[in-house]
Amino acid sequence: MSPKRSFASDNYAGVHPDVMAAMERVNVGHQVAYGDDEITAELDNRIKDFFGPQAEIFPVFNGTGANVVALQAMSPAWGAVVCAQSAHVNVDEGGAPEKVAGLKLWTIPTPDGKLTPELIDTQAWGFGDVHRAQPMSLIVTQSTELGTLYSVDELAAVVAHAKSLGMRVLLDGARIANAAVALGVGFGEFTTDIGVDAVSFGGTKNGAMTAESVVVLNPEIVLAVPFLRKSDMQLASKMRYMSAQLLALLTDDLWSRNATNANAMAQRLADAVAGIDGVQVTRAPQANAVFAVMPADVTARLQERFGFYTWDQATGEVRWMCSWDTTEADVDAFAEAIAAEFTRL
Amino acid sequence: MSPKRSFASDNYAGVHPDVMAAMERVNVGHQVAYGDDEITAELDNRIKDFFGPQAEIFPVFNGTGANVVALQAMSPAWGAVVCAQSAHVNVDEGGAPEKVAGLKLWTIPTPDGKLTPELIDTQAWGFGDVHRAQPMSLIVTQSTELGTLYSVDELAAVVAHAKSLGMRVLLDGARIANAAVALGVGFGEFTTDIGVDAVSFGGTKNGAMTAESVVVLNPEIVLAVPFLRKSDMQLASKMRYMSAQLLALLTDDLWSRNATNANAMAQRLADAVAGIDGVQVTRAPQANAVFAVMPADVTARLQERFGFYTWDQATGEVRWMCSWDTTEADVDAFAEAIAAEFTRL
Amino acid sequence: MSPKRSFASDNYAGVHPDVMAAMERVNVGHQVAYGDDEITAELDNRIKDFFGPQAEIFPVFNGTGANVVALQAMSPAWGAVVCAQSAHVNVDEGGAPEKVAGLKLWTIPTPDGKLTPELIDTQAWGFGDVHRAQPMSLIVTQSTELGTLYSVDELAAVVAHAKSLGMRVLLDGARIANAAVALGVGFGEFTTDIGVDAVSFGGTKNGAMTAESVVVLNPEIVLAVPFLRKSDMQLASKMRYMSAQLLALLTDDLWSRNATNANAMAQRLADAVAGIDGVQVTRAPQANAVFAVMPADVTARLQERFGFYTWDQATGEVRWMCSWDTTEADVDAFAEAIAAEFTRL
Amino acid sequence: MSPKRSFASDNYAGVHPDVMAAMERVNVGHQVAYGDDEITAELDNRIKDFFGPQAEIFPVFNGTGANVVALQAMSPAWGAVVCAQSAHVNVDEGGAPEKVAGLKLWTIPTPDGKLTPELIDTQAWGFGDVHRAQPMSLIVTQSTELGTLYSVDELAAVVAHAKSLGMRVLLDGARIANAAVALGVGFGEFTTDIGVDAVSFGGTKNGAMTAESVVVLNPEIVLAVPFLRKSDMQLASKMRYMSAQLLALLTDDLWSRNATNANAMAQRLADAVAGIDGVQVTRAPQANAVFAVMPADVTARLQERFGFYTWDQATGEVRWMCSWDTTEADVDAFAEAIAAEFTRL
Repeated sequence: MSPKRSFASDNYAGVHPDVMAAMERVNVGHQVAYGDDEITAELDNRIKDFFGPQAEIFPVFNGTGANVVALQAMSPAWGAVVCAQSAHVNVDEGGAPEKVAGLKLWTIPTPDGKLTPELIDTQAWGFGDVHRAQPMSLIVTQSTELGTLYSVDELAAVVAHAKSLGMRVLLDGARIANAAVALGVGFGEFTTDIGVDAVSFGGTKNGAMTAESVVVLNPEIVLAVPFLRKSDMQLASKMRYMSAQLLALLTDDLWSRNATNANAMAQRLADAVAGIDGVQVTRAPQANAVFAVMPADVTARLQERFGFYTWDQATGEVRWMCSWDTTEADVDAFAEAIAAEFTRL
Repeated sequence: MSPKRSFASDNYAGVHPDVMAAMERVNVGHQVAYGDDEITAELDNRIKDFFGPQAEIFPVFNGTGANVVALQAMSPAWGAVVCAQSAHVNVDEGGAPEKVAGLKLWTIPTPDGKLTPELIDTQAWGFGDVHRAQPMSLIVTQSTELGTLYSVDELAAVVAHAKSLGMRVLLDGARIANAAVALGVGFGEFTTDIGVDAVSFGGTKNGAMTAESVVVLNPEIVLAVPFLRKSDMQLASKMRYMSAQLLALLTDDLWSRNATNANAMAQRLADAVAGIDGVQVTRAPQANAVFAVMPADVTARLQERFGFYTWDQATGEVRWMCSWDTTEADVDAFAEAIAAEFTRL
Repeated sequence: MSPKRSFASDNYAGVHPDVMAAMERVNVGHQVAYGDDEITAELDNRIKDFFGPQAEIFPVFNGTGANVVALQAMSPAWGAVVCAQSAHVNVDEGGAPEKVAGLKLWTIPTPDGKLTPELIDTQAWGFGDVHRAQPMSLIVTQSTELGTLYSVDELAAVVAHAKSLGMRVLLDGARIANAAVALGVGFGEFTTDIGVDAVSFGGTKNGAMTAESVVVLNPEIVLAVPFLRKSDMQLASKMRYMSAQLLALLTDDLWSRNATNANAMAQRLADAVAGIDGVQVTRAPQANAVFAVMPADVTARLQERFGFYTWDQATGEVRWMCSWDTTEADVDAFAEAIAAEFTRL
Repeated sequence: MSPKRSFASDNYAGVHPDVMAAMERVNVGHQVAYGDDEITAELDNRIKDFFGPQAEIFPVFNGTGANVVALQAMSPAWGAVVCAQSAHVNVDEGGAPEKVAGLKLWTIPTPDGKLTPELIDTQAWGFGDVHRAQPMSLIVTQSTELGTLYSVDELAAVVAHAKSLGMRVLLDGARIANAAVALGVGFGEFTTDIGVDAVSFGGTKNGAMTAESVVVLNPEIVLAVPFLRKSDMQLASKMRYMSAQLLALLTDDLWSRNATNANAMAQRLADAVAGIDGVQVTRAPQANAVFAVMPADVTARLQERFGFYTWDQATGEVRWMCSWDTTEADVDAFAEAIAAEFTRL
């Protein structure tokens, strides 16, 4: 197996050794299945340290599962979800919100993956009109699919606006750790403290193997989540191992160390290519993603040696993701290869 | 953490050390996500050794996921599924077939969890009548939820009958390893060779952590499975670890050794309690489950010290499951405790 | 077009002239679409005369639509519905409850289509257990699909039992008019007064063209119904005509006259065949259906001249439905034909 | 009841007397329910005169029902539908495609409600990528929700492009009659002849009471429609009356006469207001809708006396719909009232 490094996605990376060790550690004897085990109980306590005493965590298998379970828990059967057009829930979940939960998405084009109160108003209307699928919930991603970040104030304004319209808010936190370290705040400051109802709290991209979760902050929707987690096929039998992964990330700041590295490597990469004529970084990296425009033939040649995706065929924009395990050497080698392409020209 | 042993469920057990080691082994470098990795490719080759060259394997998160993805792949939007009333898909999946895939279940009472051509006929009718949800597929469980086993001939007759009616057949193999070793045959002999269309091939109860799969045998339904696995929220990003678990079970007969132990321990337990006045084993154990009737007060006292479930409140029937890691000492200690209850009386 | 009479189904009959006239009468000028018209407003007032001041009526297209909209309005996304195995919602709706609303049905065999508290207990259990689709609602049919009738006391006991378990109750009233006249009571006495939450209030079989409805009695579920009626595709644009049909039935006791005739004709038919050797009426007719057993060859010959269905191939039981427009001459001609079959033998 | 005329919607209008008479005419004796009646058989023959010999018609209750049944019949369980952002299926069906059929919509902004091959390409991509809900079908509306019309050539190009991508095409013909008379061609010329797979063939807006339908042109999807019509709750029991309505429209060119009037009245209205300073007709009327911009206070005053909707709050654009029963006097009175508003200023 080739241990090659890639900038394609933060889930091409492996599992952090501490997470692996935590799974080994709980691999002793029998535990009650389906979450009534001791490790999950410990996780449920731990999560309150981060999100406050009312927080409850429900581990699930993947990010799509977290988003759909949470949105379904906060939406009536006739509800629709407002989201950015670029949101993972819209473009990358194979239609699961519609197919599993019957949730229509009202999508909003954005310049940078971020919603604002004004943008939300373009779709959050028609309340009470039966012909319009009712926009009862909102999903925001932090950090976004475009590598951008809401400031705490920006996010607070968005959440407050949605709540003023009677909507509930889910924060898609597949990369919440990257966001928190970039903002220099705890998770609660941009979730619990500003009125977010639930968080899709991700562990997989942050160094876990298979460990996502729904963290419920609004007690009104707690009842629904265990039932929906089951019927949405997101309930693990041997849950202790999933909980152990999340616990490991939440121990000794592993989540923060992993995210800090990923973000730093993205910055290092952006800096390294900044001076290359022919490469244009299209937005200042705010978390662990770098977006840049290069000539298509350069991209094609580089993709033979390094994994990364073309984000936009039309503009030639590419995406480079850094991971918890990306090293300075990885970045430097990649940046040199990019530079060499242009020297050669 | 108390390393206590339980007879409650075969998913109270932990992960076999070889499976854990396999996950460690693949935890090197980057791999393409979502199944385009080297380990999954190896698994896809390996599965053909067991199910034949046309077999394709699609790892999923849990048994409910495997069943629903497979049934949806083999059913039209107006299809219904015929199953035993006691089938997991009916009683233990939180309504996922109905809620995720819109599949109505036509359920059939059985004495022992096993269907027959005659029993199937009680629900497989009304083809072409739009008022009746069309019974287009059949699910059979091997070994069954009641610890019973179809002989290869019995299963072949069931499958042939279903096919003669134009139905497709899914074999729920959450405990397929226990079935194969009990029958003394390979997987293919009671699946591929008799015309089964797909198998929910389970690893979790057999010593894995989180590793189930759909093994497709009928090429007509292969196209659908990857799309449905995604939209049914069963696609793992870091799939290499799931594939590594299944590969480990399929290496050096680990699946067989684990299942053989579980079955043997069930037989040992049945034998040990056979002579106890007051305990009645309600069916000869054919796989890794023992069902018995005891007085309710005895059950209650034993449950304080040993994990196991009452299966039928009305009759006092209890279920004792043995696992890959159940030891002779576990069984003997439990049998002694049961015997002691009756001596004491 | 042959004006032949049939005993196959009460929806083979046509439309009562008064209903037709009512549609003509409202066919003047423009009316606001989708139910905000004057005729629907009048219907909404009228229904309160029958079901009490809290009742609200929502016309829908067909009985399946009424059942599914109402059940979905009273069930959470993780809910299941308890019903008799013979219920229309189970056997004759093409899986719509499962496919449209994701509702699992927990079905109960009954001798006569009627549930009892004891029978309900066979499926209304497992509350709080996520593995079991939660039995949150109950549907009872009055009069039943088997032509039987709950007494007010029987139905009150069933409803009270369901409510004591925290369940909500829908009464499938596709033939509610036949039930009311048979019982000699008003609609409210076996719905509103005993705690039923909603009624599928049927008009089509009672002499309308296309006019079913959900009558909501529990204010907690009123909010959901208009939205679900829309998303379940049961909202008519030119609703005035549907409301006019229901109003016509509820004017000058037309509903009662029509149902009284249908019931009386069923009784007349049962009486007429009672003395025929070889025909056995299998249950005393309580509404507008007669069930009887005859030799299969007699059935086959009769079906060439008269429309009616074999209900149970195994036993040879047939069903004869009488309609609002069945005449004494129709019945007598049919009874004579039956008698002639046996004379001939 | 006030016989006031409205320009709000073409389903505020009543039922054409010939349609009403047709329902009266079939109101004789018994007919087999659920579509196996003589009138529906006649309709099925008649439709072939308009759409060709392979056409089959399936009456349904409403336009949403027609769209959803047809789209579900032509889409796999993992399919998505490409449509204009302004399409009825997106904005006015309460999320039914998503909620009933699990169909994700990929929506495309358009200037005039019309798609082009180039516009389709903005969403019809990602075939084979499981992360992207697969754009397997396309819906186009003729005439569109914005009152515009595809020429036969334009539509042929759109359909050919979709087919070249492997997609199936549904034509939403809620106003297909208005389109046909405006184009001066038969239905087949812009459906069957150019490769459309199915048509939502509407009767209600064209003078019927409750009569929409799916006309299937592609034999590959015929099998699915009867089953889906049932499970999607669109199957009428007393279907003869629905078929009679559609037959009446298809007799003696009633469909054409009704649509011609509606279109002519729209043109008359557009002409009448063309000279009014302060009113700007925003697009030349091509079918039976007129869109115009007026000052908001004028709109508000006019709405007190005439029914019509503000289409776009932001721009002040209003929509005036003409119906089969709109008269010259209606139009002239309305146009005069509009003119008077500006004279008064």
